[in-house]
Amino acid sequence: MQRRRNRTLLLALGATTGLWLALAPPAMGQEEDLASVVAGQKVALDTLWVMLAAFLVFFMQAGFAYVEGGLTRSKNTNNIMMKNLGDFALATLGFWFFGFAIMFGDGNGLFGHSGWLLQGADNSPAIDDYEGVYGSIAWSGVPLAAKFMFQLVFAGTAATIVSGAMAERTKFHSYMIYSFFISAFIYPVVGHWIWGGGWLAGLGMWDFAGSTVVHSTGAWLALMGAIFLGPRIGKYTKDGKVNPIPGHSIPMAALGVFILWLGWFGFNPGSTMAATPDIAHIAMTTNLAAVTGAIGAMVLSWALFRKADISMTLNGVLAGLVAVTAPCAFIAPWSAALIGLVAGLLVVAAILFFDKVGVDDPVGAVSVHGVCGAFGTLALGLFAEDRFAPDTTGDGLLFGGGAGLLIHQLIGVAAVFGFCVVVGGILFGALKLTLGLRVSADEEVNGLDIGEHGMEAYPDFAPTVKASVPYEDYPMAARKVSPKSEPSATRPVEVASAR
Amino acid sequence: MQRRRNRTLLLALGATTGLWLALAPPAMGQEEDLASVVAGQKVALDTLWVMLAAFLVFFMQAGFAYVEGGLTRSKNTNNIMMKNLGDFALATLGFWFFGFAIMFGDGNGLFGHSGWLLQGADNSPAIDDYEGVYGSIAWSGVPLAAKFMFQLVFAGTAATIVSGAMAERTKFHSYMIYSFFISAFIYPVVGHWIWGGGWLAGLGMWDFAGSTVVHSTGAWLALMGAIFLGPRIGKYTKDGKVNPIPGHSIPMAALGVFILWLGWFGFNPGSTMAATPDIAHIAMTTNLAAVTGAIGAMVLSWALFRKADISMTLNGVLAGLVAVTAPCAFIAPWSAALIGLVAGLLVVAAILFFDKVGVDDPVGAVSVHGVCGAFGTLALGLFAEDRFAPDTTGDGLLFGGGAGLLIHQLIGVAAVFGFCVVVGGILFGALKLTLGLRVSADEEVNGLDIGEHGMEAYPDFAPTVKASVPYEDYPMAARKVSPKSEPSATRPVEVASAR
Amino acid sequence: MQRRRNRTLLLALGATTGLWLALAPPAMGQEEDLASVVAGQKVALDTLWVMLAAFLVFFMQAGFAYVEGGLTRSKNTNNIMMKNLGDFALATLGFWFFGFAIMFGDGNGLFGHSGWLLQGADNSPAIDDYEGVYGSIAWSGVPLAAKFMFQLVFAGTAATIVSGAMAERTKFHSYMIYSFFISAFIYPVVGHWIWGGGWLAGLGMWDFAGSTVVHSTGAWLALMGAIFLGPRIGKYTKDGKVNPIPGHSIPMAALGVFILWLGWFGFNPGSTMAATPDIAHIAMTTNLAAVTGAIGAMVLSWALFRKADISMTLNGVLAGLVAVTAPCAFIAPWSAALIGLVAGLLVVAAILFFDKVGVDDPVGAVSVHGVCGAFGTLALGLFAEDRFAPDTTGDGLLFGGGAGLLIHQLIGVAAVFGFCVVVGGILFGALKLTLGLRVSADEEVNGLDIGEHGMEAYPDFAPTVKASVPYEDYPMAARKVSPKSEPSATRPVEVASAR
Repeated sequence: MQRRRNRTLLLALGATTGLWLALAPPAMGQEEDLASVVAGQKVALDTLWVMLAAFLVFFMQAGFAYVEGGLTRSKNTNNIMMKNLGDFALATLGFWFFGFAIMFGDGNGLFGHSGWLLQGADNSPAIDDYEGVYGSIAWSGVPLAAKFMFQLVFAGTAATIVSGAMAERTKFHSYMIYSFFISAFIYPVVGHWIWGGGWLAGLGMWDFAGSTVVHSTGAWLALMGAIFLGPRIGKYTKDGKVNPIPGHSIPMAALGVFILWLGWFGFNPGSTMAATPDIAHIAMTTNLAAVTGAIGAMVLSWALFRKADISMTLNGVLAGLVAVTAPCAFIAPWSAALIGLVAGLLVVAAILFFDKVGVDDPVGAVSVHGVCGAFGTLALGLFAEDRFAPDTTGDGLLFGGGAGLLIHQLIGVAAVFGFCVVVGGILFGALKLTLGLRVSADEEVNGLDIGEHGMEAYPDFAPTVKASVPYEDYPMAARKVSPKSEPSATRPVEVASAR
Repeated sequence: MQRRRNRTLLLALGATTGLWLALAPPAMGQEEDLASVVAGQKVALDTLWVMLAAFLVFFMQAGFAYVEGGLTRSKNTNNIMMKNLGDFALATLGFWFFGFAIMFGDGNGLFGHSGWLLQGADNSPAIDDYEGVYGSIAWSGVPLAAKFMFQLVFAGTAATIVSGAMAERTKFHSYMIYSFFISAFIYPVVGHWIWGGGWLAGLGMWDFAGSTVVHSTGAWLALMGAIFLGPRIGKYTKDGKVNPIPGHSIPMAALGVFILWLGWFGFNPGSTMAATPDIAHIAMTTNLAAVTGAIGAMVLSWALFRKADISMTLNGVLAGLVAVTAPCAFIAPWSAALIGLVAGLLVVAAILFFDKVGVDDPVGAVSVHGVCGAFGTLALGLFAEDRFAPDTTGDGLLFGGGAGLLIHQLIGVAAVFGFCVVVGGILFGALKLTLGLRVSADEEVNGLDIGEHGMEAYPDFAPTVKASVPYEDYPMAARKVSPKSEPSATRPVEVASAR
Repeated sequence: MQRRRNRTLLLALGATTGLWLALAPPAMGQEEDLASVVAGQKVALDTLWVMLAAFLVFFMQAGFAYVEGGLTRSKNTNNIMMKNLGDFALATLGFWFFGFAIMFGDGNGLFGHSGWLLQGADNSPAIDDYEGVYGSIAWSGVPLAAKFMFQLVFAGTAATIVSGAMAERTKFHSYMIYSFFISAFIYPVVGHWIWGGGWLAGLGMWDFAGSTVVHSTGAWLALMGAIFLGPRIGKYTKDGKVNPIPGHSIPMAALGVFILWLGWFGFNPGSTMAATPDIAHIAMTTNLAAVTGAIGAMVLSWALFRKADISMTLNGVLAGLVAVTAPCAFIAPWSAALIGLVAGLLVVAAILFFDKVGVDDPVGAVSVHGVCGAFGTLALGLFAEDRFAPDTTGDGLLFGGGAGLLIHQLIGVAAVFGFCVVVGGILFGALKLTLGLRVSADEEVNGLDIGEHGMEAYPDFAPTVKASVPYEDYPMAARKVSPKSEPSATRPVEVASAR
């Protein structure tokens, strides 16, 4: 009966969004009815695509968790899983309560201030006769809940990027707090500027799927976080040499990258927010940049280190994807391949640079999402071609469009960088002065899994000596460890007998 | 040529389902032709969504395998992978041969008895002029194969839930046998009552996507299984204290949860079995409950254990998802958030309760799927609102609809509990008396991977001493181990060096 | 504004593919306009399905990486991740530059030679009035970029199959080179014969989704590669006995199989390259074969080894999937179940056979993709039924269609085998004589992760003694190991304690 009644339910549900015709069999002979049915089917088709794309982007949370977890040590893996799960939870609440209204609600050039809690007037999926307070996203003909879900998973991505750069030393409760602030307030403000009808959009700055809105925003905040935290114990030797800290599971990181790559096919093509045949072109440019990014990073690391470095290659894939995210709908495949290649080279250089200047970013998040996000946003100003989207970006500098577009892109990149540096500084500074940002040295040495969550990630596997102590002062630490590791090589015992 | 001919093929295939018009370019000028084309496109669109949702739900098999594998010990991981793969294999055959006919075939209020082997008359995707023996699911306008595939992956889910509560001690061949019975006979009977036009549907009990039909059914059977098996060696100390047995890979469990969360976006929104714009609303309520479930479990475990417990948080996500599965299409976002939050608190309490009363459920399956499934089904009676689906549930108790709906839900929950307890008792009792349910103590100590499958899951990694023996009586067990573990060069070495 | 303008963008993008009507709200009262809108919606719907299927097949790259990684040793896991990522990168470039033109470009019966670099004339998504150089794939009504992306992920699959059989001993740069050749030239030639209007298509040989085109092609090349490489050190004892080398993570392999199973729902149903209701039937036959394949392999291994062997069962799933790939759209569910069952038995026998004759295929790729791919292609000649696709295959031998179809299938299987053996011999022979195919014995013993990529996959976990040296001649190897393994603090410790 439940199920027998479901069709009634569907008609009814349809009715609530004024679409029952779409769900009823087409009425014969009355043309205007048929036209409504067809219109209803378009709404259903667009909604299906937007939701499927949202599901793919949601799954990127698992990808980020696995990339970050794989590239860090086994004593902090639980903490990283918790952070990546927790920040999406708080992003959901924060973006539902405040974020969506600030980003897409009617307001001024700096932020929206209408439609809090998703309770604003809205007659979506209407487009031409839209009436409501979320006018800046009324161009998409899907229900409000679909717009929210798709934008939410983007907000969750921005929040999660921060996690990587601050891995292995951040207090869990402080992490939860700033994750909420980022997805509820900081990300939405930047989003309003560029996607919510704000001042950068008015200026003519373009970012199709979020190289700057999502990736750079997350990364510049991450940069401030990493600076306020300082490097991990053992990352730099007393004489300032860089001490590489290898990740504990490269296949975990590799799966994470494959999941992110898959998710990006929702991230970029999904940003059409309508089921158009052009998702194919966008998926193609996206994939090409991922591929050339991988090749660029692999070849450069091979040349530099005499080995095809896998963590660099994995970051090369992400670098290409991040860079093509802004221009993916406006450029030719060749341009996408070139942009990805440059991003792949750039990310290796950037990772080495940040290591050198003493910013300890365990997974290279700032290089991947910040540097390559900024590069991709600028690349739009170089490679955009009017023919791919007449009446939008126009031609970029390399296609005869002059420097105007590039300058607008540059202003956007600079403005977002400045905003994130200032707001990030205030946020992390305030946390450092109040709750504190960083765990104790003892907890950091023994791992946040025990310290923050009271549980090991891998209690059945004996760790190498390396795995439980910082590298530079091995003997001292070893003494700390060895007595404890007699009965069982696992850590809770060690911690216990430490007292 | 193969491919050149494929379009002919498509037309032909279309013809077999009376849809060739939908696949041909629309005929100009004849309106009724155009109407048929539009009708055909709706069938194609609905079929696409139902199949994509089925694929997402299928992938939940991997999620269940990883949650169960991650939360148990490394010596039983192969066995868990085999169980989760094997039960879906037997579910496919059992649901194909018998299950679908019992669940959706014409019959009486207790079970269907028409259309065995999917061979019954059926003119799907016809709706209004449906002619066939699967009338209870004729409300969905997709081909019979699509209805079968979507319902099959649900049956597979119910079967796999049982696996978790009986992990680490069940004979593999006995597991295979009762998996078949559950998906072929037991689950379909419950499904018929509620979704197949049976007596509970007639009564007016509602369960949109299966909190009771799928999750509670699996969980109450799992409860009986866990009781008949008894606790794992080492779970309780001689003086009856609970001895926590940590899972061997939390990141494995975390990935499992992310995969299940993704799959739930097919599970709940897909239960519309039509591509309606309302999948967005259902996805939103589903996601909110997952999020508040995680927060509820995290906060409560934090308060209880002074740490943000990750396995509780992971179960909190699943608790929220299970609870919202029944009401997801009938409730407001706020109600979903509240239901998820309560489920998150409830699951922690339930896990502690079952531990205390001596039911050893290694992954908390009974608490997550049983307790929260029942709660969610009842919550529908409290939070349902007529406006979301006129002419279906009507208003729940909290929205002025009176207690009628809640009482119907309560009857459904109780009836399914009683049925599963009785049938589960007979099934597991019979197996215990004949083939036996539980492996030998020796095999349990050394792991089912060697005992049942002759292969270690992780032969390259040295286990901790803890990993190869039950915790409470280490030395006795260690002696037991060394002779037994010829197949593996690993453990003797470890155990030896530990002596 | 960016976003506000996006609708303009969509209209514009639509215009570039002549579809703006599809994106505009349906014009009332002009019937021919409505017909165009409906036609446009069909293109959008078909494109959505083809792209989603392509995304699922793309994700199979992760599945292959995890199956291969899980079934091999932990000292080569990074190398396997790099290979699976790298070959898709090179496949993308190779198939973009040359492959698509050779496979689908106008040409002769042996290969296409038009439309290099995807730059040929093409008015896709037009079907009936198609004008362009990719006529052999003009039967699908989606944009050229969608055709390319879908065919690209198939090419990537063929390339990646080779990786498994040559695992744990192949030089990385040589692997990269032949991966490019396979996806740019070898696979496209076979594809042209059968899907590109080549001589086998003309003959009337059928392969719906690629049992031969994709799987056998990859496998026969893999066979040649494995022969040219020779077996891994330690695979055979001095007296020629087979020495099983267990994989390092069965759950990793199991996840890989679940991912591949999911991906196959894009691989087979997606090969309609149009959103038809018949994707449901194809998904059902695909799933049934996977299930009976698993059961066949499990039961046979149980009978042979007295244990339900998990690696055999995992390969049984893949065997069933590979075998049903050719006939999936042309056969009844019962036929699919039978084909899968036979494939499951066949794969166990084939794996034992190749082990016996001295072909060391670490993951059984040749047995799964070669033997079962050939079997499935022949099974089409036995089980095809005209009713499923009138005017295509006609009835197979078992359904009264005579032996004609079976003979055509046999010719196809033999031709592809012969071609791959010859071309593979030349390719691998040339590489062996020039750059070399195989790493040094020293590097093989210590693992390609260090040797090729300078990084361990799992630096935090202590390996078992077994894990770092070949089984048969431990002491000799151990001596070799200790000096070599400076980069890792792990192995010296282990080896020391073993002395």
